[in-house]
Amino acid sequence: MAGATGRPVASTTSVLRVMNERAVYERIRELGPVSRPEVARETGLSKPTVSLALADLERAGLVRTVGHRTGNAGRAAMLYEIHPDAGRAAGIDVGREWVRAALCGLDGKVLARRDVRTRAGGPDELTGQLVSLVDELAAEAGCAPADLTHIVIGTPGVHDTEAHRLRLAPNLPGWETPGVTRDLAERLPAPVLIENDIALAALGEQAHGLGRGVPDFVFLSVGTGIGMGIVLNGELYRGARGAAGEIAFLPLGETDPLTRAPEAQRHGMLESVLSAAGLVATARRLGMDGRLTTAGVYDAARAGDPLAVEAVQYEAGNVCRALASVIAVLDPRLVVIGGGLVRHGQDVLLDAVRDRLADMTPLDPPPVEPSALGADASVLGALAIGVTTAMDIVFHRDVAEPAVG
Amino acid sequence: MAGATGRPVASTTSVLRVMNERAVYERIRELGPVSRPEVARETGLSKPTVSLALADLERAGLVRTVGHRTGNAGRAAMLYEIHPDAGRAAGIDVGREWVRAALCGLDGKVLARRDVRTRAGGPDELTGQLVSLVDELAAEAGCAPADLTHIVIGTPGVHDTEAHRLRLAPNLPGWETPGVTRDLAERLPAPVLIENDIALAALGEQAHGLGRGVPDFVFLSVGTGIGMGIVLNGELYRGARGAAGEIAFLPLGETDPLTRAPEAQRHGMLESVLSAAGLVATARRLGMDGRLTTAGVYDAARAGDPLAVEAVQYEAGNVCRALASVIAVLDPRLVVIGGGLVRHGQDVLLDAVRDRLADMTPLDPPPVEPSALGADASVLGALAIGVTTAMDIVFHRDVAEPAVG
Repeated sequence: MAGATGRPVASTTSVLRVMNERAVYERIRELGPVSRPEVARETGLSKPTVSLALADLERAGLVRTVGHRTGNAGRAAMLYEIHPDAGRAAGIDVGREWVRAALCGLDGKVLARRDVRTRAGGPDELTGQLVSLVDELAAEAGCAPADLTHIVIGTPGVHDTEAHRLRLAPNLPGWETPGVTRDLAERLPAPVLIENDIALAALGEQAHGLGRGVPDFVFLSVGTGIGMGIVLNGELYRGARGAAGEIAFLPLGETDPLTRAPEAQRHGMLESVLSAAGLVATARRLGMDGRLTTAGVYDAARAGDPLAVEAVQYEAGNVCRALASVIAVLDPRLVVIGGGLVRHGQDVLLDAVRDRLADMTPLDPPPVEPSALGADASVLGALAIGVTTAMDIVFHRDVAEPAVG
Repeated sequence: MAGATGRPVASTTSVLRVMNERAVYERIRELGPVSRPEVARETGLSKPTVSLALADLERAGLVRTVGHRTGNAGRAAMLYEIHPDAGRAAGIDVGREWVRAALCGLDGKVLARRDVRTRAGGPDELTGQLVSLVDELAAEAGCAPADLTHIVIGTPGVHDTEAHRLRLAPNLPGWETPGVTRDLAERLPAPVLIENDIALAALGEQAHGLGRGVPDFVFLSVGTGIGMGIVLNGELYRGARGAAGEIAFLPLGETDPLTRAPEAQRHGMLESVLSAAGLVATARRLGMDGRLTTAGVYDAARAGDPLAVEAVQYEAGNVCRALASVIAVLDPRLVVIGGGLVRHGQDVLLDAVRDRLADMTPLDPPPVEPSALGADASVLGALAIGVTTAMDIVFHRDVAEPAVG
């Protein structure tokens, strides 16, 4: 059999068989406990093909029977569901302040969950913390670390997979040193994917949040740093070097003195004005004094303090410039906004953003909505991609490979 | 047979047959005159399957024999090639000043070519001009207008396919009126696709220029207006409403007085400073006088006039800000620059752009190269997409449909 590109592939029958078994498996995963006739109806496959596929999947341990459907007139139908323990995925979101981690089976059900303070002393210390964390998650889920099929880790910046290090991650000191991510991967008990944390948050929104069923959307995160995850045609878009969505470096805010500080070179011109530190610095520049925090600025704005209101308006203007840039380039169907800075101030920030954005875009701007997933967006995205890859790994190992070998 | 999504499709054997025939057809199209054993080797299909496919394709008029290969010891092998006259596509690039048009067969060979001054009096006049132009192209190619399979038209702005009009196309007066593009399509002798002209230029680069084999690249055009075509994962990316790449509206250049003029509302903040009119206005603001044209400003810069050099540097800064924005969002592998303004000044402009861009991007910027296709990029892109769709139409009509019916 040859695809539309005309490239030859492996023997037709074995490829078709694996394709059919994958289709049967994914349908069962979507539908929950189902009978053989239901699977046949839902996949469009013949009943003998479905029977063959189910037998194979049961033998490989990917599918199991869960009793019979009761209450029907005729013979009770045997019900099938996927076996959640056939594979396990861990998702870990490594932020500057918190590491959030979870472990789940192939059904996506979370079996263990831990949030701990980041030990940011350097790559050695943090690597040790992540290895221990995986051990603890496995213990809590009642399995061994070696039972993990795939581990997905979200970090700031861009993972340079050639030099095995992070780039553009000034908030995680020491991780720019070549070799550090290889060391981390070698010390963990399963294959590891390191992915940008905001990209994972976009995948979290796609799996569990506002991005469900939306082919083209972006997730803008404003917190310690600023970044964007991009989903195009239903897939995460990473760019040539994994640096798509690194909008901290948008050339915006030139008129702001903060963008001329040396920090702006390292963190990006936009991030220097649009981040937690940026909001506080703007409030101070406008004349607020005392010990300022972002929460304090938002509280003062809620109470009507004119300087705080002006600082929040200024921040909304920068959010709008960032969004107007992204909209001009990508024309997304939806913008989801998350991150600490937005979570704490969305009541005073989002209306200002929506008002001003319409003036900055030539067509009606897309809806701008706050994330419903809060701080969990990245870890949920890590689990989503982790489960999908774990299924690929299990399928390749237990279903496709035996067929070829 | 079911795909990975588990959705049922039509009968396996007929779907497989059409897939195989399409693979055989595309391979023959790529390779030129080839023998049956060569097709079998290149597609990975069995010889009986190839023989069946060739017989079907010949019967449908899509493939024809072209003699035998000579000089071999054994029996001379019959050679096959695609039939270029099985379908025909026209590509038309409608600019404010010029309409560029071409017609080709399914082999992509241009059979007729016309460039004429745009009759920009309004949609009626321009529609009449395009209808006559298609007739003339057909006559020049030795066929009837009704022999055309597909017509692709490039225009500025965004085609609103619900209201049948253009949006964001201030350079084509009258085309914002609802119904005008439906009227145009109804008066033309084949199915019509209306696509953004810069998006088509990107497809031209993909088919014949620097974009060949590059999965992710952008084509930046700076001329009467400014725009960008985006190719991601090898496909044109259009955005939710076809407005992806409408970077005239990037919120850049706020410090420039031009961006505060009423014109900037209609044409976009960036376009007001970065376009042919923008360059002349900047040169005048800096103190150049007399009757200024873009060519005049470039000539003066080449001759070392300090005001002209400053105007070109200023323009380069705006090109860089636009590119830095696009790179921050998309991380493309390659930037191709075209359009009238760049064509006339690339010798004085591009080095300045490359120098400054490195300071504005956190990772090394992607290569920035001038288009090698000149003013033909859009019409070549229109033909490329036109031929592909014409093949789809012919295949569906002559190969797939008879099999189902």
